[in-house]
Amino acid sequence: MNDLISRKMQSVKASAIREILKATSNPDIISFAGGNPAPETFPVEAIREISDRILSENPYSVLQYGITEGDSDFLKQANIFFNRNEQVTKDNDMIISATGSQQIMDLLSKTLCNEGDIIVSEEPAFLGALNCFKENGALLRGVGFKNEQLDLEALEEAFASSPKPKFFYTIPNFQNPMGTTMSLEVRRQVLALAKKYQIIILEDNPYGAIRFTDQAIPSIKSLDQDDLVIYAASLSKIMAPGMRLAVCIGRKDIVGKMVVAKQGADVHTNLWAQKVSAKLLETYDMDKHLKYLREVYQKKCELMLKTMDQAFKQRVTYTRPKGGMFIWVTMPDHIDVNEFVQKALKHRVAIVPGASFYIDDSLPCHSFRMNFSTPSDENIIKGVRILGELMGK
Amino acid sequence: MNDLISRKMQSVKASAIREILKATSNPDIISFAGGNPAPETFPVEAIREISDRILSENPYSVLQYGITEGDSDFLKQANIFFNRNEQVTKDNDMIISATGSQQIMDLLSKTLCNEGDIIVSEEPAFLGALNCFKENGALLRGVGFKNEQLDLEALEEAFASSPKPKFFYTIPNFQNPMGTTMSLEVRRQVLALAKKYQIIILEDNPYGAIRFTDQAIPSIKSLDQDDLVIYAASLSKIMAPGMRLAVCIGRKDIVGKMVVAKQGADVHTNLWAQKVSAKLLETYDMDKHLKYLREVYQKKCELMLKTMDQAFKQRVTYTRPKGGMFIWVTMPDHIDVNEFVQKALKHRVAIVPGASFYIDDSLPCHSFRMNFSTPSDENIIKGVRILGELMGK
Repeated sequence: MNDLISRKMQSVKASAIREILKATSNPDIISFAGGNPAPETFPVEAIREISDRILSENPYSVLQYGITEGDSDFLKQANIFFNRNEQVTKDNDMIISATGSQQIMDLLSKTLCNEGDIIVSEEPAFLGALNCFKENGALLRGVGFKNEQLDLEALEEAFASSPKPKFFYTIPNFQNPMGTTMSLEVRRQVLALAKKYQIIILEDNPYGAIRFTDQAIPSIKSLDQDDLVIYAASLSKIMAPGMRLAVCIGRKDIVGKMVVAKQGADVHTNLWAQKVSAKLLETYDMDKHLKYLREVYQKKCELMLKTMDQAFKQRVTYTRPKGGMFIWVTMPDHIDVNEFVQKALKHRVAIVPGASFYIDDSLPCHSFRMNFSTPSDENIIKGVRILGELMGK
Repeated sequence: MNDLISRKMQSVKASAIREILKATSNPDIISFAGGNPAPETFPVEAIREISDRILSENPYSVLQYGITEGDSDFLKQANIFFNRNEQVTKDNDMIISATGSQQIMDLLSKTLCNEGDIIVSEEPAFLGALNCFKENGALLRGVGFKNEQLDLEALEEAFASSPKPKFFYTIPNFQNPMGTTMSLEVRRQVLALAKKYQIIILEDNPYGAIRFTDQAIPSIKSLDQDDLVIYAASLSKIMAPGMRLAVCIGRKDIVGKMVVAKQGADVHTNLWAQKVSAKLLETYDMDKHLKYLREVYQKKCELMLKTMDQAFKQRVTYTRPKGGMFIWVTMPDHIDVNEFVQKALKHRVAIVPGASFYIDDSLPCHSFRMNFSTPSDENIIKGVRILGELMGK
C-alpha cells in the first residue's frame, strides 16, 4: 500500500515543539515551552454556576444538535463583546462560531485554497497556523520582520508575486512567538497593500485582550473599509481554552462558504461551551475580569523580564512584550540554539527553539521562545537563572 | 477578485435538505426531515450531576488545554465501552477522540486524499459524508444497492478501477438514509474485496446501539484481521449530540496522521464533553440506558410503520428498519418525488427527497427519507396520514 498518506499530510513533520512539550509532562521540568493561559484567571465559579443553571433549566439547549453557524445567543453576545471598543463587525459581515481559532484557519484555507495555492504568512509565525495551511495543501511564503515590525517591502513583493497569494496570515497583537505588536502605521500600510493587490487578510487576535498598556491599537479589521479582513477572535485566553471556542467575523461570500466547510468539519461547535460563554459574556463583569487577567500576566511578564535582565547579563537580546504570553530571545550567532535548548532540557528547563516557527525549520535560527503565562513565579525565577547559568558555560 | 473560492468548495452546493430543514424551524410544520435523536433519551440528570461534580472538584481538567489525541480518561472508558460486545480495537490500533464522527470523515479524507483522488461510497449515503469528501478535494464514486444489500459486483468494479480509490465509506447498521443493515455475509465479502484490492474502509457506526433486535451483527472492524478498517464510533445518538463527541479506532500509521491533522483542525475536542462522557461511561448504567433508548426508538418506528401501512395503502414501498432513525420510501416511477416533497411541505409535513443522498442529485430518484426519532407520537400519526392523503390525490 504505497502512497497511503496524502502529499499535504506528508509535508507536515512531527514538530520539535511536540517532542519538547511531551518532555514537559514530567513535573520536575520547569516549562517555558508551552502556551497555556494562566489557570488562575479562569472564571471557574461563574462557569460552574452558569453551567449548572443551564443544565437544570434548559438542558436540551446544550444537548441537542445545534446549527452550524453557531448558537444565536452566543453569536449575539460575542458580537457585542468584540465590538465594545472598536467596530470590528461591518454592515455586510457575518459572524459564526468556531471550535477554537484553529478551526478558522482550517476552514478559511479549505474555502480559499486549491492544492498548491500560496498563503503568505508573517515569519516567525504561530506553528499551528503554518501546519494547518500546509495540511490544506497550500504552499507557504514567509515575510520577515525588521526592528520588530513586518518587512513591508517583502510583503509587497509577496503580494505582487505570481501566482497571486490566496491570503495573508498575521497575529498583529503580541505575536506568537515574538510577543511583538504591529504598529498602527504598519497596520494601515498592510491594509493599503492588501487593497492594492486585492489580497484577503486573516487577522488572528488570540492575545489582544491581554495587554499591559491602557490604549489598544485598532485591529486591522476595524480599519478595513474594503471587506478584505477575516477576523478570528478567540475565547481561549480570556475565558478557558478547554472549551474550544472562537468566532469568525467577515464578508458573507467567504464566511458563508466557511459555514458549508464547517458543516463537513464538525457540524457545529459544542453547545455547552457556546451557551455557557454567551451567559458569561452577558452577565459576568468582563471588564473586571480582563483587568485582573492583565494584572496577572503583566506581573509574570515583568518578573520574567527582570530576572532575565539580571541573569542573562546582556549576553542575549530579547523582546519586551506589551501583552500576550511570549518573549523571544535571540542569542549570538556563534551559539547553536538547538544545542542550547537540549542542554537546557537536561537541566530541566524547557524552551522552544526558534526554528520551529519558520516555514523551513532547517535554516539556521538564533532565537528561542519563552512563555511566561504558565509557570509559577518561583519557577520563573528558578528557570531563568538556570538558563542564565547555561549561557555562561 | 475572481477564483476567490476553491474548486473543491465550489463543488458543494447549498443542499435541498438545508432549505427544507430551515422551513422546519416553523413549529407548525411536522418534520420527518431531520435526524435529531429523541431528546427524552438524553441522560440529562446524570450529565448535570457529573458536570457539576467535575466543575466543582477538578475544573482545570475541563478548562485548560488538553492533548490532541483526547482525554486519557475518556479514551479508556470509550475503549472499554465500544469493545464490550466484540473486539473492535486490535493490538496495533490507536484510539483518538474526535469532535463528532463528522470530524473523522474530514480528518481521514485530509490524511489520505490528494486533490482529485477517488473515494468510493455506498449510495444513497449520508449527505454530510458525501459533502465532506468533496470539500476535501476528493472525487466520489457511488456503489448502489440490490434488494437492500450493497451491490458487490459494482463494489468490486469500483475497487478495481484506476486510479485506485483511497477508501470506501459505509454505514453498515441502519444506514442513513435507508435504514437498512448490511448482512454478515456481505460484511465478510466487503472485507474480502477490500483485502484483495487493498482498500481502506471507513466504517461509520452512529446508529449501531439503536437496534430493535437482540443480536447485533458484528462490525466490519471486528471481523478485520488485516488493518483495513478505520472505525468511527459516535456518542451523539447514545448520549447527546450537542456535545460533539466520537472516537476513531484504527491502525497507527493512519490514525496517528489523523492526530496531526486534528491538531491543525481544532487542537483538541472540548474537554467538558470528554470528561463528562468518561464519567458517564464509567458510572452510569449504560445497559439500562441503551435498553430504554431502544424501546423509545422501536416504539416510534413501529408506530410510524403501522400508520404508513394503513395510510399509504401499498401505493409506495418502504424499508422496515431493525434500528436507527430512518425509513426510506420509494414511490412509483410516474410520480415526481420533488414535486411530492414540495406538496407535502405546503401541507406542513417535511420529508427529504431521495436525490439529496446521491452523488449526482440531478439524476431521477423515486424515493424520500422519513425520520421517526424526532417527531412526537401524535405528529407521527398526523404527518403520515397527511402524506397518505397526498398520495391519493
